[in-house]
Amino acid sequence: MTTPYQLYYWDGLQGRGEFVRLALEEAGVPYVDVARQKKGMPALMASLNGDKVAHPSFAPPVLQAGELLIGQTTNILLFLGAKHKLAPRAEAGRLWANQLQLTIADIVAEAHDTHHPISTSKYYEDQKKEARARARDFREQRIPKFLDYFEGVIQHNPGRGGYAVGARLSYVDLSLFQLIEGLSYAFPKTMAKLAPSYQGLFALRDKVAQRPNIAAYLRSKRRIPFNESGIFRYYPELEK
Amino acid sequence: MTTPYQLYYWDGLQGRGEFVRLALEEAGVPYVDVARQKKGMPALMASLNGDKVAHPSFAPPVLQAGELLIGQTTNILLFLGAKHKLAPRAEAGRLWANQLQLTIADIVAEAHDTHHPISTSKYYEDQKKEARARARDFREQRIPKFLDYFEGVIQHNPGRGGYAVGARLSYVDLSLFQLIEGLSYAFPKTMAKLAPSYQGLFALRDKVAQRPNIAAYLRSKRRIPFNESGIFRYYPELEK
Repeated sequence: MTTPYQLYYWDGLQGRGEFVRLALEEAGVPYVDVARQKKGMPALMASLNGDKVAHPSFAPPVLQAGELLIGQTTNILLFLGAKHKLAPRAEAGRLWANQLQLTIADIVAEAHDTHHPISTSKYYEDQKKEARARARDFREQRIPKFLDYFEGVIQHNPGRGGYAVGARLSYVDLSLFQLIEGLSYAFPKTMAKLAPSYQGLFALRDKVAQRPNIAAYLRSKRRIPFNESGIFRYYPELEK
Repeated sequence: MTTPYQLYYWDGLQGRGEFVRLALEEAGVPYVDVARQKKGMPALMASLNGDKVAHPSFAPPVLQAGELLIGQTTNILLFLGAKHKLAPRAEAGRLWANQLQLTIADIVAEAHDTHHPISTSKYYEDQKKEARARARDFREQRIPKFLDYFEGVIQHNPGRGGYAVGARLSYVDLSLFQLIEGLSYAFPKTMAKLAPSYQGLFALRDKVAQRPNIAAYLRSKRRIPFNESGIFRYYPELEK
C-alpha cells in the first residue's frame, strides 16, 4: 500500500511543516516525511523546481496528495481540513477557519522576524541588535494584540467545547496549540506572565495536547523538539 | 437596490485593500468602499470587534457579502474568485491560484517591512537605519527571488495568453499587476534594471492594465494614487 501523503519539509526543525504534521497526525492518516528519509532531499528540491513539477512551490512545506502538489501552509490545511473533517463543511465556516489560520500565519511570520529582522539570508548573530529591538516590540505589542484576538474568538464562539470554530476540533485549534507552545518556548517569561489573561487559549492548548493521536505524536520521534533552527527560537537575550 | 458588497479598508491608501478592489473592479460588481463614505469609520471598526460581529477580523481588508463577513486578503480573493469566475473551478486550479496568491502576500508583507523592520507601531523615521539594511536585502535578494519564481510560473504555464494560471485571467494576474506596479513605485531604479529579465511579468502587467474594467478603474477617482501611507512607499534613501 502506498501512503496517501508525502510531506516535503526541511529535516531537523518543526518550522511551518509542523502545522501540517499536526493535522496529518490528528487525522490519523499515514504520511511520509520525505526529507527525513534517506535520499529525501532531491525530492524536496524537485517540489520547488518548475522544470520538474507543474505547480512548484516558492518554499516548503509542500504536500503531495496523489497527483496534487500543494504548497503554502494555510493552503495545505485548507485542503486537509476539507478531506479529513478538520474544518466546517459549509462555506461560511470554511472561510472563517481559513481566515483564522491566515492570522496565525501572520503572527508566525512575525515570530520568525524577531530573530531575522533584517535578512533571512544572514545569520542571527549578524542582526542581533535589531533582533532585540524587534523582539521587544513583538513581546510588548504584537503578542498581546494577537492573543487578545484569538482569545476573543474562543470566548465569543457560540459552539461549546472551547474550540476556535464551532463545536468541534478544527485544524485552527491544532495550530493554536502549536502557536502557544512555540511562543512559550521562545519567550517563556513573557508567556508565563500573560497566561492568566488567556485562559481560553491555554485551556485549548491543554485540550489539544491530550487528544489521543496528538499525545501519541508528541511522545514519538516524529515530533522534532523545538530548537534554534526553527521559527520559534529560545534566545534568552531576546527576552530582556 | 443594495450593492452586493461592502469593502472595509482604511481610507487614503491602496494597501492590501487594493488587491480586493482590483478583483471587484474586474468583475464589474458594484461595491461600497465603506471607509471612504461619510461616517464609514465606525462601520470599519465594528468589523474588527468581536462584541459586534460574529467573525471579527484582526485587521482590514474585510469584505461584507450579504451575511458573510470575510477577512484576510487571500481569503477574500478565494471567495471572490469562485463567485466571479476569477479563478479555476476545479480543485487543483483553485488551490494553485490560492497558493500563488499566498506567495504574493508573502512578498507584500516583506515590502511593508522594508520601511517598518522593527515595529509597525513606530514611525518610519524612528527605524530608518534598520529600514535601509532591510530594504537593501529586499532589493538584492528577495525581489529577484520572488520575481524569478513568478516569471517561472508564467513561462511554464501550459495555458496560452501569458497568464499565471491556465488560459484565462484570474485574480492572481490582477495581484501580480499590483505587485509589479507597487514595486516599481517603491523601487524604481531597481525595477527598471530588473525589467528585461522578467518579460512575462511585465507583459502581464501591461495586459492587465489594458483590460477595459481595469483601465477605467485606474483612470477613476476610486484608484487612490500610491503614497507614503501604503505598503509600497517611495523613500529614495531606501534605494541607495
